[in-house]
Amino acid sequence: MPDNIVSPDSPAALLAARYRSGAISQPPQWSAALTTLLAHRSVRSYAPTPLPDGTIETLVAAAQSAPSSSNLQTWSVVSVADPARKAVLAEVAGGQQHILQAPVILVWLADLNRLATLGAERGQPVEGLDYLETLFVGIIDAALAAQNAVVAAESLGLGTVYIGALRNDPERVAATLNLPPQVLAVFGLCLGYPAATDTSGIKPRLDRSVVLHRETYESGGCTAPVAAYDQAIQEFQREQGIAQVPWSKQALARVAGAHSLSGRDRIKGVLHRLGFKLV
Amino acid sequence: MPDNIVSPDSPAALLAARYRSGAISQPPQWSAALTTLLAHRSVRSYAPTPLPDGTIETLVAAAQSAPSSSNLQTWSVVSVADPARKAVLAEVAGGQQHILQAPVILVWLADLNRLATLGAERGQPVEGLDYLETLFVGIIDAALAAQNAVVAAESLGLGTVYIGALRNDPERVAATLNLPPQVLAVFGLCLGYPAATDTSGIKPRLDRSVVLHRETYESGGCTAPVAAYDQAIQEFQREQGIAQVPWSKQALARVAGAHSLSGRDRIKGVLHRLGFKLV
Repeated sequence: MPDNIVSPDSPAALLAARYRSGAISQPPQWSAALTTLLAHRSVRSYAPTPLPDGTIETLVAAAQSAPSSSNLQTWSVVSVADPARKAVLAEVAGGQQHILQAPVILVWLADLNRLATLGAERGQPVEGLDYLETLFVGIIDAALAAQNAVVAAESLGLGTVYIGALRNDPERVAATLNLPPQVLAVFGLCLGYPAATDTSGIKPRLDRSVVLHRETYESGGCTAPVAAYDQAIQEFQREQGIAQVPWSKQALARVAGAHSLSGRDRIKGVLHRLGFKLV
Repeated sequence: MPDNIVSPDSPAALLAARYRSGAISQPPQWSAALTTLLAHRSVRSYAPTPLPDGTIETLVAAAQSAPSSSNLQTWSVVSVADPARKAVLAEVAGGQQHILQAPVILVWLADLNRLATLGAERGQPVEGLDYLETLFVGIIDAALAAQNAVVAAESLGLGTVYIGALRNDPERVAATLNLPPQVLAVFGLCLGYPAATDTSGIKPRLDRSVVLHRETYESGGCTAPVAAYDQAIQEFQREQGIAQVPWSKQALARVAGAHSLSGRDRIKGVLHRLGFKLV
């Protein structure tokens, strides 16, 4: 490759795509894993190609290699390939077609039931499971595990996209997957080879200065970077052939109130019915 | 290397260390990223070596490359190197000495303040931020971002360990880092080169069959794998020269009740005072 052509997988090209800025300096160190991490894009168009045998097992081994709070391992995952079951999940998620297309959906669970069952078997108290904090532990454990699986999948050429919209109706997900009490479907994850027609790109993010603070949190001063990001995200949307909406407008619309939460404003009642006391 | 010697970084060796089982079949595909993921171990003993310039920026670029729920990017991170500030964090975490030793602690934040500020600037409602669901979004965003940073760090030869114990007293962490309202320190992350004397190993996990379900959740049937795991974890503890306690005993002790939660049973009141309404 001639010197004046930058490989799309080079650190400089990946950083330029992520930040839409030429002002990013070349990092002092790099790794194959960093190339995988920086090249992430969410894939919403899948080929029907099945996953090679053993792939899910490898991804779960990566997931289990993630840290777990106090090693409690308060998470589980359900691998869903049945079309009828995927159709229910797609419906819960507001009709996202890629859930039907992807050969497999992994549903990541905050699972406090395993310890509840163990406590019951041994006649030991497990009242700590009733606290909101312990649900946080389950959610964090599930998220760390899932993200390891995403990195593993992408390193093998697979595409993924999280489906947070399973939280639009966790009770229906629980009924569909036969979840016991004290288990919450935190999110789904579509898994498959990207369709040949897939052209999803690297989504730009807010400038690093907005999220990275030194020693203490610096409040304010986001106006200029948010304005720049509103431009960058619209440039990305234009390239992707999707409707152009400034990020700040889209984000504020999403958090405007109960009506903008797609049913998730009901989560506390839902959690109570799923067996979480949220003390 | 002769054929009969298995490299400690080979897929088979990494899987055998993670599951303490000879019954793990060789995966059909592998990658450099998978080697990084499977080789994870938590490091609690650090060299004083500073991080190369630009390292934190690279890790944050990896973190920002993680998926974000509806691209809301409801997370931030504070990089803490000041010894006095680290000492406060160590105290909150019950005196964990590695917080003092590691050159840098990254404190990962669920940050709903950025959108609250944006809404206030524009006179737009942001009542969606008041829901428990939106705090979940912030916690999940922070966890996905942090785990990408962990993978990036380990791929560069750095060691890490999460410090969930910052949630023992999130108000003191908020005061120390000057956090604005609606921002929660989800966990810390020690970052540095492992000490020359560090001998931390790959911690075994529960058998894959315990966490991976097919199509629907299969309840029960954990007695045998938990018994096997209790043995495996004690074998690991013996190798590491630490006190041997069966996993099931340790885990049940941790979730026994309010008294076993190290102050985290107070989290709801704390969150209210930090500006989260938890509707």
